[in-house]
Amino acid sequence: MLQGNAIIGQSGGPTSVINASLAGIIEAARDPRAGAPAAIGRTLGMRFGIEGFLQGNVIDLGAEDPATIAALRATPSSALGSCRHKLQEADFPKILEMLRKFNIRYCFLIGGNDTMDTIHRVERYCRAQGYDLIGVGVPKTVDNDLCGTDHTPGFGSAGRYVALSVKQAGMLARDMKRVDQFVVFQTVGRSAGWLPSAAALAKVAEDDAPHIILLPERAFDQDRFLADVERCHDRYGWCSIVCGEGVCYADGTPISASRMTDKFSNVEFGAMGGTSAAMMLHRMIHAAFGWRGEFQVCESLQMCAADRACSGDVEEAHACGRRAVELAVAGTSGVMVGIVRDSSEPYRWSLGAAPLAEVALGAKPMPDNFINAQGNFVTPECIAYLKPLIGPLPNYVRLAGAVVN
Amino acid sequence: MLQGNAIIGQSGGPTSVINASLAGIIEAARDPRAGAPAAIGRTLGMRFGIEGFLQGNVIDLGAEDPATIAALRATPSSALGSCRHKLQEADFPKILEMLRKFNIRYCFLIGGNDTMDTIHRVERYCRAQGYDLIGVGVPKTVDNDLCGTDHTPGFGSAGRYVALSVKQAGMLARDMKRVDQFVVFQTVGRSAGWLPSAAALAKVAEDDAPHIILLPERAFDQDRFLADVERCHDRYGWCSIVCGEGVCYADGTPISASRMTDKFSNVEFGAMGGTSAAMMLHRMIHAAFGWRGEFQVCESLQMCAADRACSGDVEEAHACGRRAVELAVAGTSGVMVGIVRDSSEPYRWSLGAAPLAEVALGAKPMPDNFINAQGNFVTPECIAYLKPLIGPLPNYVRLAGAVVN
Repeated sequence: MLQGNAIIGQSGGPTSVINASLAGIIEAARDPRAGAPAAIGRTLGMRFGIEGFLQGNVIDLGAEDPATIAALRATPSSALGSCRHKLQEADFPKILEMLRKFNIRYCFLIGGNDTMDTIHRVERYCRAQGYDLIGVGVPKTVDNDLCGTDHTPGFGSAGRYVALSVKQAGMLARDMKRVDQFVVFQTVGRSAGWLPSAAALAKVAEDDAPHIILLPERAFDQDRFLADVERCHDRYGWCSIVCGEGVCYADGTPISASRMTDKFSNVEFGAMGGTSAAMMLHRMIHAAFGWRGEFQVCESLQMCAADRACSGDVEEAHACGRRAVELAVAGTSGVMVGIVRDSSEPYRWSLGAAPLAEVALGAKPMPDNFINAQGNFVTPECIAYLKPLIGPLPNYVRLAGAVVN
Repeated sequence: MLQGNAIIGQSGGPTSVINASLAGIIEAARDPRAGAPAAIGRTLGMRFGIEGFLQGNVIDLGAEDPATIAALRATPSSALGSCRHKLQEADFPKILEMLRKFNIRYCFLIGGNDTMDTIHRVERYCRAQGYDLIGVGVPKTVDNDLCGTDHTPGFGSAGRYVALSVKQAGMLARDMKRVDQFVVFQTVGRSAGWLPSAAALAKVAEDDAPHIILLPERAFDQDRFLADVERCHDRYGWCSIVCGEGVCYADGTPISASRMTDKFSNVEFGAMGGTSAAMMLHRMIHAAFGWRGEFQVCESLQMCAADRACSGDVEEAHACGRRAVELAVAGTSGVMVGIVRDSSEPYRWSLGAAPLAEVALGAKPMPDNFINAQGNFVTPECIAYLKPLIGPLPNYVRLAGAVVN
């Protein structure tokens, strides 16, 4: 059994439950039942991910109050600090130097694609240099676009934030349709449509929001979109639209880059200039029909709303952290913990492991059978997949409204 | 005792608890203890406010399942439908015709300033025409800018949405400061700064969000603002800014109207073109410092997030509805129910009543002693006022972070 210290890092954008995974790793590393104390000496933390580690920014997680560690389960954001550092060749000798300096033999990184690629490359480099290091990844991303797992911890809670928001704002739009005629809600997620799809769970009755879901997996066609909006407006008197931030035209241009008029400069008006897909859709609808409406851009709020976290998501995130330690002390390296769906109804899950090399390959888009033929909503198969992850939404009532003449 | 039917209407933008007031009115109108059944025959509802009523759009609330009425307490948005109709002279005879047609002697409107003005004018017109009508208003607005009440039902819950959002997004920004350096959160509320102020409750430690609060009560000065942002960034490595949507330059121009460059047309880029104060602040900061950051525009989401409603707010909204009926059947007309704060610590409240004529006069801005001398944050007096309305926020933890060398 390899003996030495362990280090934990968090990377990329956070989720509401990323600290539950952190707590799971720390607790398992202290837990004799997991067999960890025989292998793992000190449990250290990287401040600001691999970027901080390269600068020797390391803290002692063993010195933390156990009550703090337990409270991490309900604390959003990345308690260790995060980064988005893409490893350069020159980083590897420096990383090895730090691993040696702190006698680290176990490395746990909680993150998405890029993070899994980081562990994979560090582990491979160390092996080539004759330094024994066990590296295990713990999945995390609200985007749900990681291969090697049925879904990612963090997605369910963010999806719940989206579904709740669209449901509540849809009721408001319905009741205010004499004033405003449409509402556009934008989700994060550049390349995959999992988060906008989660909004579909808000719909119970046919006229409930959302009416239209725009996914990055399908090219945006302005004429078709406006025809869809008009049809919903004719039918309901208002229209609810949900769009992924990364929705693009057929030529690959994001809709968040203005194409409305040449009076606007794309350079200033791109991502750095602060614009959004929802704002562009709002402008299109207003220009076409003259209606009043609003756009909602919550950005990272959907990644950190711990008060809206799904209890199942918290539990899975914590279990993934624990399992990473169990795998590592059993000598397994180069894998990411994955969640296996054993059954959707009733929902049952277990844990597996996927080779990092496979996980790091690329983002997982939504499968074709989850998107309807018109490309403007999701299918019942998609809803069946999402339902246990998002959990039940509140049962709001509607008046019967018996007309008096 | 005046005998006849009662009608209830909801008006203006909704809140998370506006239906709790509706439930309070309906339940009190059925409650023998309130003495109402002797006075009130049928309880009717206006669909889409006074605008729907003018068209004879009336429903029978007495026919609703009591379980539905009870569930209204937790159902956001305006269950009756709402409007923003400003009464015209020509409307009054039509309204009287409808009142006669449905034998309405009791009129309850739940709303803000304009709504109180509506009841006031309708009641006065009826009196002049010799038609006995008792009109009582129930306060409602997330903006908290109504005179005649310590605070408005709906404000606490919206303020909680704001405080939770700013707290969670602030933790995220702190942990992601190696990637993004600032976050701008925009609240609704055109003329009063109550909602942006509510964000101050998110701050526990000195470096916690928010760092800067921009209020419509103070003129915006770009140079001073950018100096504040830079100072926060120097101190913390990131900056959290909260702004009310209606913040204006000294000359009265809203900051949401672009003044950055003449390449942008103010006409298209105004409210109808879909822009926002937060986006403009984002652009300013990026232009001045080159930092990455994000802006968050939740719009009406903060008016309808019933899952984040404060239980005290729900209770007060419901009690205001009940009291309106009690006042009306006791013969009181031309008033709005108001909440009286008997004590802040511990928080104790009771109900009062204010003449509609006074309430309808105008919006209530924040008092000067609630805003700091620099005009970029609120004072301890303001926080003491807000605290019992917003309620305690979650206790998120922070790692002690003992450095290992």
